[in-house]
Amino acid sequence: MDPDALSKAFVEHYYSTFDANRAALAGLYQEASMLTFEGQKIQGAQNITDKLAGLPFQQCQHQITTVDCQPSGPAGGMIVFVSGNLLLAGEQHPLKFSQMFHLMPTPQGSFYVLNDLFRLNYA
Amino acid sequence: MDPDALSKAFVEHYYSTFDANRAALAGLYQEASMLTFEGQKIQGAQNITDKLAGLPFQQCQHQITTVDCQPSGPAGGMIVFVSGNLLLAGEQHPLKFSQMFHLMPTPQGSFYVLNDLFRLNYA
Repeated sequence: MDPDALSKAFVEHYYSTFDANRAALAGLYQEASMLTFEGQKIQGAQNITDKLAGLPFQQCQHQITTVDCQPSGPAGGMIVFVSGNLLLAGEQHPLKFSQMFHLMPTPQGSFYVLNDLFRLNYA
Repeated sequence: MDPDALSKAFVEHYYSTFDANRAALAGLYQEASMLTFEGQKIQGAQNITDKLAGLPFQQCQHQITTVDCQPSGPAGGMIVFVSGNLLLAGEQHPLKFSQMFHLMPTPQGSFYVLNDLFRLNYA
């Protein structure tokens, strides 16, 4: 699978899972994984999933605007850089966001999220 | 130097150099370096510098809003995630941008930019 197709598939899987059932994102993270969410640093799959599941909105919808990817070095990782809109239930205006993922290969031939950084870009 | 201080110092250096003399950014990239600029992929220090120097504006000013960083794995790299405003000479309204850098250590104890991804977030 070429990197562009892989990154698009990851992004679709990530955000459709996020919008349907945030707790199910746990399988994408490992103990070494880090999330920086609006400046707050969180480490480890359980802590990250707790943070995402505990965000103060029940329903949301991500609309993806751009997906860029690059290989991140000899370890076989991949950087995925996303911009888009976040629609919260009950809100009229979407929030713009940027997010980047650093995916690392697993021994099983899949990928996990080592680095995850998220920022709202207040319009 | 702690990672947060290092990433802030890098960001200040990068954008002040960009705004003063884009050609001088060449020293921050190497042959393996990649830039994705608004979806266009460019590889290698010279090609990247040519792209940046050839952007269709003469003067600009970056105003940084947020800087986040995370270590990127056992190779000693660092991910720096930036959001901010870009003011172009002669334009009244700033453009919002997001940019991420993956910095890798050099044998000399410094860092170079392995991955550079830039996107304007059209407001």
